[in-house]
Amino acid sequence: MVKIVVDMMGGDNGATPTIAAVTKFLEDHDDVEIVAVGDEKVLEPLKEKVKIIPSTTVAPMECSVMQAMRDKESSVYKAVTATLSENADAVLSAGSTGAFLSLCTLILKKIEGVDRPALITQFPTKIEGKYVVLLDVGASADNNAEELVQFAKIGEAYYQAFYDKKNPDVYLICNGTEEGKGNNLSKQAYSMLKGRENFKGYLEGRDVLTGVADVVVFDGFTGNVFLKGTEGTAKMMGGLMKNAFLSSLSSKIGYLFARKSLKKMTELMNYKRVGGALLVGVNKVAVKAHGNADFESFYGSLMVAYNSAKKQTVEKIKENLKI
Amino acid sequence: MVKIVVDMMGGDNGATPTIAAVTKFLEDHDDVEIVAVGDEKVLEPLKEKVKIIPSTTVAPMECSVMQAMRDKESSVYKAVTATLSENADAVLSAGSTGAFLSLCTLILKKIEGVDRPALITQFPTKIEGKYVVLLDVGASADNNAEELVQFAKIGEAYYQAFYDKKNPDVYLICNGTEEGKGNNLSKQAYSMLKGRENFKGYLEGRDVLTGVADVVVFDGFTGNVFLKGTEGTAKMMGGLMKNAFLSSLSSKIGYLFARKSLKKMTELMNYKRVGGALLVGVNKVAVKAHGNADFESFYGSLMVAYNSAKKQTVEKIKENLKI
Repeated sequence: MVKIVVDMMGGDNGATPTIAAVTKFLEDHDDVEIVAVGDEKVLEPLKEKVKIIPSTTVAPMECSVMQAMRDKESSVYKAVTATLSENADAVLSAGSTGAFLSLCTLILKKIEGVDRPALITQFPTKIEGKYVVLLDVGASADNNAEELVQFAKIGEAYYQAFYDKKNPDVYLICNGTEEGKGNNLSKQAYSMLKGRENFKGYLEGRDVLTGVADVVVFDGFTGNVFLKGTEGTAKMMGGLMKNAFLSSLSSKIGYLFARKSLKKMTELMNYKRVGGALLVGVNKVAVKAHGNADFESFYGSLMVAYNSAKKQTVEKIKENLKI
Repeated sequence: MVKIVVDMMGGDNGATPTIAAVTKFLEDHDDVEIVAVGDEKVLEPLKEKVKIIPSTTVAPMECSVMQAMRDKESSVYKAVTATLSENADAVLSAGSTGAFLSLCTLILKKIEGVDRPALITQFPTKIEGKYVVLLDVGASADNNAEELVQFAKIGEAYYQAFYDKKNPDVYLICNGTEEGKGNNLSKQAYSMLKGRENFKGYLEGRDVLTGVADVVVFDGFTGNVFLKGTEGTAKMMGGLMKNAFLSSLSSKIGYLFARKSLKKMTELMNYKRVGGALLVGVNKVAVKAHGNADFESFYGSLMVAYNSAKKQTVEKIKENLKI
């Protein structure tokens, strides 16, 4: 059995999508147990299916660490603490990223050998069915070389466990591919990672989504800028494509013929399905769903939590940090 | 008259596209004078139209600064030195970025008040006809806060001159938009830029291409990762779109109807037309065309050199650094 604690209230869309997603997830999986945290009245429809832990407040999206720690009645605070008290495998929230990350770090505690937990996200690549794992995409703003090395080990172990690949290709993001390239930070991390079996060297931004890499290591600042830049570019191109199709009668007709194939394409680029980001380096599986997660997106996040727990990613990360 | 020195040999495609582009550019503009540097025999077709400065070697694409400085017969070395001796306004090369940047910095010299010259690139945005200027996208790997402030001043002056906009909106890239966000470097730069008239604060990666900003300041490492990430995402989406259209008979028919509108879209995303990158912060206009520039792309780079010189961007940058 996989046991997941879910903050039902934290997202922008309240409990409607989370109740629907949890209900469907329980229908689809018979080896999962959900602990739902939130307003008892609102969660009434789930009463027969899950254990409900009542909470009375919701941490605001822009929430300081102090605020998050102080409001012990918030759904996110109760969800994170329940992960320990209920001895669950995973915790999931669509609430404030800052609050969730700091609560997970402070309450679930960091794995031995981890200085800074990292946010992992998974991206589709040019190679059909292949995903690339990026970390850190924003848990930290400043990192040192030791932390980048830890990210490499964490990412490697996560990929091995989650995608069942013994030797994932691990790269370090850089402004060029030759050994002499990089800023002071990446040069130092490179020299520490060199010689490690699965470390394949530097990777440029243009090659992150080609499918050549399984894991790409970023400092949290650069990773965040990269991730959001990719999102912005995809959105802009999507908008341009839409305008192109709307621009003439002929192109509108064209759209009617091509829409089925185009839908497949937009589905591939639909990051909602990928299911948010994971905080790795803490003692439980901790999944941060998108703040504006809808049913589909929240279901995707439950899937990530479930698979990450089932594949024992936390245990594998612990082992790999010793090597 | 605008006088441009052109390294005719440096690119991957040799002199064929550069000769064609220079010929066409001279036909289209009657207030421009070109000095062409390269193999005299190869440049024979231009003999009547331009001054030719013979060179005998070509600096390799992967070229160290030492190598670039030592080979005084290379087309790029001769082009940069000729910019001074011929009293030209601008220099253009499609050769090794490293060699060109260091030669420009060492020979043309930095403008007073500039510690590190920066690479500027121009991007189309969601707003039709509007471009955003990004710097530094890779001249440096490590920058300090003073250098980011210089980039802001350089970018502001460049935008004012090139796009005739008195008060361009200048932003600093960040992992969030609130004042407390950022890494140590961006926090320090923010506090130094705060209160400056055109400085509008932090910008996240997802908003760089929306058109909200005129100028976005990056450290060279992050800027390079962002730029290449955008390129990779655009390429991936282009590939997905192509596959979507090829995937069925119906979608192929759809393409026939929509291709005219779609062509407009791909033209907008065609960075070749934008004309490469500019090295700013040196005493002349210095344009780095893409290494694999074809006729269209090289023509675009000539256009950038011509307009940057005509609009006196170097003089405007000099003035703005004093404020």
